[in-house]
Amino acid sequence: MTYCLAMRLDEGLVFMSDTRTNAGIDNISAYRKLHILKPTDDRIFVLQSAGNLATTQEVLDRIQRDLQSPGDHENLATVGRLFEAALYIGRLGREVSRNHSQALSAVGADGTATFILGGQISGFPADLLLVYPEGNYIRASDDHPFLQIGESKYGKFMLEIAVEAEAGLIAATKIALGSMMSTARANLSVGPPYDLAVYQNNSLQIDEFRITADSALLSRLEVLWQKHILNAVAELPSVADFEELAGRPSVAFSG
Amino acid sequence: MTYCLAMRLDEGLVFMSDTRTNAGIDNISAYRKLHILKPTDDRIFVLQSAGNLATTQEVLDRIQRDLQSPGDHENLATVGRLFEAALYIGRLGREVSRNHSQALSAVGADGTATFILGGQISGFPADLLLVYPEGNYIRASDDHPFLQIGESKYGKFMLEIAVEAEAGLIAATKIALGSMMSTARANLSVGPPYDLAVYQNNSLQIDEFRITADSALLSRLEVLWQKHILNAVAELPSVADFEELAGRPSVAFSG
Repeated sequence: MTYCLAMRLDEGLVFMSDTRTNAGIDNISAYRKLHILKPTDDRIFVLQSAGNLATTQEVLDRIQRDLQSPGDHENLATVGRLFEAALYIGRLGREVSRNHSQALSAVGADGTATFILGGQISGFPADLLLVYPEGNYIRASDDHPFLQIGESKYGKFMLEIAVEAEAGLIAATKIALGSMMSTARANLSVGPPYDLAVYQNNSLQIDEFRITADSALLSRLEVLWQKHILNAVAELPSVADFEELAGRPSVAFSG
Repeated sequence: MTYCLAMRLDEGLVFMSDTRTNAGIDNISAYRKLHILKPTDDRIFVLQSAGNLATTQEVLDRIQRDLQSPGDHENLATVGRLFEAALYIGRLGREVSRNHSQALSAVGADGTATFILGGQISGFPADLLLVYPEGNYIRASDDHPFLQIGESKYGKFMLEIAVEAEAGLIAATKIALGSMMSTARANLSVGPPYDLAVYQNNSLQIDEFRITADSALLSRLEVLWQKHILNAVAELPSVADFEELAGRPSVAFSG
């Protein structure tokens, strides 16, 4: 499994990916799933991947080859808009997984991959898109300006709270980390190191960080979540004392 | 879908269930999924259900019929231990779903149900068991003394924090509500009213509450989660300022 998330904020974009990959529970490795691509000076992309590792690696190799090969074929340097980059990556993903689908399905394996593509092409706003294995895409919405791929359920709550509170770029990185930690704690196939990329609108450059398992930041965050969630609980009136519920009789049925 | 959770604490047991049922997205109803059964004075059970609604209703009807029919057949009044009650309910669940399996599988429907059974038989400690559709069961463990059935992922984080902090009965009811709310917010097929049951060890009686969608308690809780989670975030040092990460160069690859 995998967990990648990305947020679109007023100031810019925040990306976070875990690095754990597994082929069965007894074959676990760490691979980068967050890739920064700057094919020309007028654009920058962050590509996050979930799904078949071999497929995502071949897609990245093809992206690189298309950039380095002469000719007028489509590549990340020639696309005019972010959605065209998404369609291009979607096409590569579909082609790669189709090439291997017969051999993979013979052993019951799934060769598909899903991507989050974010970034900016000069002259257009920064944006986030999710590219499906089928090659089509959706954009992060104004109501829910975040995207998740992989194991998305455990960490969704914190992203929603962040969005409702209109968090800034700095706060959003911490919330991303909280969302990642809740997921890793619940699903063994998601784990550190975590890659974090932060993009400030119109800067055309990415700040990137790697957070390791022994990070003091992670342990501090863990303590703080616990403290504040328990504080939230402590401040709440007791269910039994709450006026609307007081005096309700017990319900029971007997034989 | 459904979300039911139960916690075993030093002082007693806490149970919470949503009430939403759906047969497709355009056919949504509210049904009770938390049932209190007191077949004799020396025992009390709470039964929570997820899965096929018809199956769970027929299981409840059979439990009732077994209690009311004369004879020496097994029922909830005659079982000597909680695990025997779990096996009895597991057998009923398996029988009911098997009776309907041919007709259901012909239309692609699943007739199975999963249960949480909690409570106490006088002379034995209170406990929690999860009964699988196959009729076997597991017990809540000392490390993770809570059980969940249905849509369990979204609300797991809060239960874990509660357990680590060794919350009391009152705090646990609030955490149960928080866990339920995070789930309902993420999954439309989980929704209010919520049924809450609280059992104090050796009391052999249950306090039961129903929390409706317009509950002031729910809106207060929502505000408090947001406030405290954002406080936790605000207290964390900025990722970029954090010593262990400072001065890391950006990584990029270009065509």
